[in-house]
Amino acid sequence: MDLMPIIKKRRSVRRFKNKEICPELIENILQAGRWAPSGLNNQPWKFMVLEGENKDALCKFTHCQSIIKSAEKLIAVFLNKKTSYNYQKDLMAIGASIENMLLYIHCQGLGACWLGEILNQRKKVHKFLKLGSTLELEAVIALGYPLAKTKTSRRKPLKDLMIK
Amino acid sequence: MDLMPIIKKRRSVRRFKNKEICPELIENILQAGRWAPSGLNNQPWKFMVLEGENKDALCKFTHCQSIIKSAEKLIAVFLNKKTSYNYQKDLMAIGASIENMLLYIHCQGLGACWLGEILNQRKKVHKFLKLGSTLELEAVIALGYPLAKTKTSRRKPLKDLMIK
Repeated sequence: MDLMPIIKKRRSVRRFKNKEICPELIENILQAGRWAPSGLNNQPWKFMVLEGENKDALCKFTHCQSIIKSAEKLIAVFLNKKTSYNYQKDLMAIGASIENMLLYIHCQGLGACWLGEILNQRKKVHKFLKLGSTLELEAVIALGYPLAKTKTSRRKPLKDLMIK
Repeated sequence: MDLMPIIKKRRSVRRFKNKEICPELIENILQAGRWAPSGLNNQPWKFMVLEGENKDALCKFTHCQSIIKSAEKLIAVFLNKKTSYNYQKDLMAIGASIENMLLYIHCQGLGACWLGEILNQRKKVHKFLKLGSTLELEAVIALGYPLAKTKTSRRKPLKDLMIK
């Protein structure tokens, strides 16, 4: 199977159709996230799915209101501090889990945007969601069916990324 | 395309055949890593490919000697501090880049192991590789053609990962 077109064509999607995502699809997206690799297989992630009023309420903690409003659902991704053994490695594992979900979302004809700016108001989000101290918000994935064709993106040339 | 079997069947591979990986394949693996998402598209990663004596020399910085010896090549993944804007988000982006490479490697019939324990001797590795202060080692990927069928792995049930 050639994975390259999937990896290259996945783009951030910021505007979505008013079309529901079925629960089975959401579950599969989370399954994709769950199967990521992690150091010592500690699986340091936790997930929360937000929709409707709960979803829209997050608008007040970010500049990305329009993306959140437009999204059909949000998946909030947390570090589970109880299972953490190395903060740096746990963050990389969570990045791998998020990428699994983003690639899976793309393969299903859905689109998503990885929101990070909301972390600036992490404490307020925690308070609003009534989360215990064992969780730390690391990202919010906004998702839905894409409204329009996504734009292209760019990357630095590989030669500029290589260390000889 | 159904990505789920790829995500679920990718496993850590720790023993490899004595068979060369062609340069085009290595370049494609790095391309997969290069196309990961990152905050503000800052692409905070740098890569170094190690083989032969240089590869084997890394054995002295880790307990994973047998994996490094057996691997045909290593890809060392670094944070490029020059392009860093948020350490947490950069680490997650690097995790996404590594996952892209691991999935691509698996799709090509190769196998890999994400080595993290070597970070305990990060300073010594930096010195040995004569790296400047703008780079920070985050992971080493050992890769090659798998010697044997890989074992299964386990994950926590999804219900244990969900926050209501």
